[in-house]
Amino acid sequence: MKVKERYFETIWIHPADPAVVQIIDQRFLPFRFEVEDLHHVEDVYRAIREMHLRGAPLIGAAGGLGVYLALARRKEEAAPADLAEIADYLKSARPTAVNLAWAVDKVVAAVSGVSGLSGQVVAAQEEALGIVAAERENCRKIGNYGLPLIANCHRQKQGRVDILTHCNAGWLACIDYGTALAPIYRAFDEGIPVHVWVDETRPRNQGARLTAWELQQHGVPCTVIADNAGGYLMMRRQVDMVIVGSDRASVHGDVVNKVGTYLKALAAFDNGIPFYAALPSSTIDWELDAGALDTEVEERDPAEMRQAEGWMNGAPARIDLMDRDTAVGNPAFDITPARLVTALITERGIVRTNKNDILKLFPEKTQTPEV
Amino acid sequence: MKVKERYFETIWIHPADPAVVQIIDQRFLPFRFEVEDLHHVEDVYRAIREMHLRGAPLIGAAGGLGVYLALARRKEEAAPADLAEIADYLKSARPTAVNLAWAVDKVVAAVSGVSGLSGQVVAAQEEALGIVAAERENCRKIGNYGLPLIANCHRQKQGRVDILTHCNAGWLACIDYGTALAPIYRAFDEGIPVHVWVDETRPRNQGARLTAWELQQHGVPCTVIADNAGGYLMMRRQVDMVIVGSDRASVHGDVVNKVGTYLKALAAFDNGIPFYAALPSSTIDWELDAGALDTEVEERDPAEMRQAEGWMNGAPARIDLMDRDTAVGNPAFDITPARLVTALITERGIVRTNKNDILKLFPEKTQTPEV
Repeated sequence: MKVKERYFETIWIHPADPAVVQIIDQRFLPFRFEVEDLHHVEDVYRAIREMHLRGAPLIGAAGGLGVYLALARRKEEAAPADLAEIADYLKSARPTAVNLAWAVDKVVAAVSGVSGLSGQVVAAQEEALGIVAAERENCRKIGNYGLPLIANCHRQKQGRVDILTHCNAGWLACIDYGTALAPIYRAFDEGIPVHVWVDETRPRNQGARLTAWELQQHGVPCTVIADNAGGYLMMRRQVDMVIVGSDRASVHGDVVNKVGTYLKALAAFDNGIPFYAALPSSTIDWELDAGALDTEVEERDPAEMRQAEGWMNGAPARIDLMDRDTAVGNPAFDITPARLVTALITERGIVRTNKNDILKLFPEKTQTPEV
Repeated sequence: MKVKERYFETIWIHPADPAVVQIIDQRFLPFRFEVEDLHHVEDVYRAIREMHLRGAPLIGAAGGLGVYLALARRKEEAAPADLAEIADYLKSARPTAVNLAWAVDKVVAAVSGVSGLSGQVVAAQEEALGIVAAERENCRKIGNYGLPLIANCHRQKQGRVDILTHCNAGWLACIDYGTALAPIYRAFDEGIPVHVWVDETRPRNQGARLTAWELQQHGVPCTVIADNAGGYLMMRRQVDMVIVGSDRASVHGDVVNKVGTYLKALAAFDNGIPFYAALPSSTIDWELDAGALDTEVEERDPAEMRQAEGWMNGAPARIDLMDRDTAVGNPAFDITPARLVTALITERGIVRTNKNDILKLFPEKTQTPEV
């Protein structure tokens, strides 16, 4: 995607120094665009944990490159115990994000058979960049598969297509293109009139800060609303469809996503509005045969609730929203049951949310032992 | 209610100067407790419009006292055209609040037959204070009628009763006691263990700023959550019931309330959790026979969305949450259909949300011409 006319992805290896990973530091958007250098695996951990970057596919890519960076900075070959330690450390940064565990394990597995440090580093780099390339390609395909949903709606409605999204599942959450936003960018580029209702997405405001910025950079019309407003807009028929991303999905089609997603799915269902989750198959936890309802949900720092973070007189600023000793709850995700999700938009096509159809689309996964 | 051991209501006539109305200026809570003097009807208009005070019953009381203040400041008797002008002006401050129109009309009607300025002032004062007294008493009764709902839940659960509320429908929204919070205060005073999940209620954060403060002043345990989190908590069985207030209700039991209420009602319904709206009958728009779904919903200032208001280094502060030219939508209310509302808690008792039962409880309203 372009940022002020220059092409960017969200994460890459420093062109002049292969032992440095660079990322867009998303903490200062939309007010300041900043690139951060990550030198050590601890920097990657912190970038994931403190959300310099976020979004399921991007967290996965960062985790994979984190394993690479850990090896690139070593003085000697990593023993299996070292690799396990690196993996556990990185995975603990965001426990609910299935892509993180998946990518870290994938890179560790690629390294495991290799002897000699330099061979390990090369293997890790290849595998991690392979993940980056695959996620980029997955998102491009999600955009293509999602496009007809918007095009059909436009044909039927003979007017602007209004799409509601929650949190940020755009290119900032991925390598490029986005998941939920990929079909929207494709539709916009095809000349279909689209408009996006952007949930601000408290407490971290990823919608107001990231999604709105992304869409504005690309020229896509959008309107930021309070998380409270979407149900009202749906009842008033001002929303034609909802598209969200996902941090973890079950083989049944249950969708774990940013807290508040479930409420929008309920409202869409109540008003007969289609509700889609766009996700690469790397987000599906194939072991979650019992459904996603028991997923461990990360409880985040109370300060995210007690304070608001923004900008004042050209500088980042925080204000207190309530007394600092006020008790707060801050679950990061919720679970939308498959029955409320019209379909998943994946890199292999659109699929109804039931185990049979999902496994038919990903037949290689039927090998997974059943619980 | 007590504020730091001193008894307060939300609005009263200045004890030493009957031509001044005093209110708690809620804009600086929870950080600063301030009493504001209102000298002119324009001060009342501004206090309502800019939300120095808010909440259906309190807005009504303020509107009534606004008519009184307009008359108290006049030099000569008000002609019918003067009264109509005062009424229209005050009602336009918050068009969705049915109590405002109701109270303003009630005071104007009481004045209408009276000749001579001093007689008009006395009549207006009497009627307005009558509204204040009636709303105080209504809320007390709502507390009493709601109490058994909590007590029964406590008996069945044999443990703490967890109640979710949205926005502020406590004593700060009324004269005293509150609507949604009245049964909670009663239960707490009876020694029943209660805990309140407080939706922060973006964009104005009435939950985080007012409800949490009220409950803390009274000693009721509470936890502030993002508006996004309630569905998740309900799915995890951490909510036993939802109680909200209302800004306008239909004779069928449709409930217009702070935007976001509908989403919580959907989640309660989906999880089999009872959802109550607590309201005095002055909040019911008896003319709304077609249901509340077509209610005109106030669109508020975009700045409420683009900025966050709070406190920094001991002083009120605002920060930008997004670029100032970002398009935002800011509807203040939504409509929860009667089918999602288990019952209304009114000053005459608990009633199922259908026209027959509601009119049986308020038989004098059957006189209203049917649409």
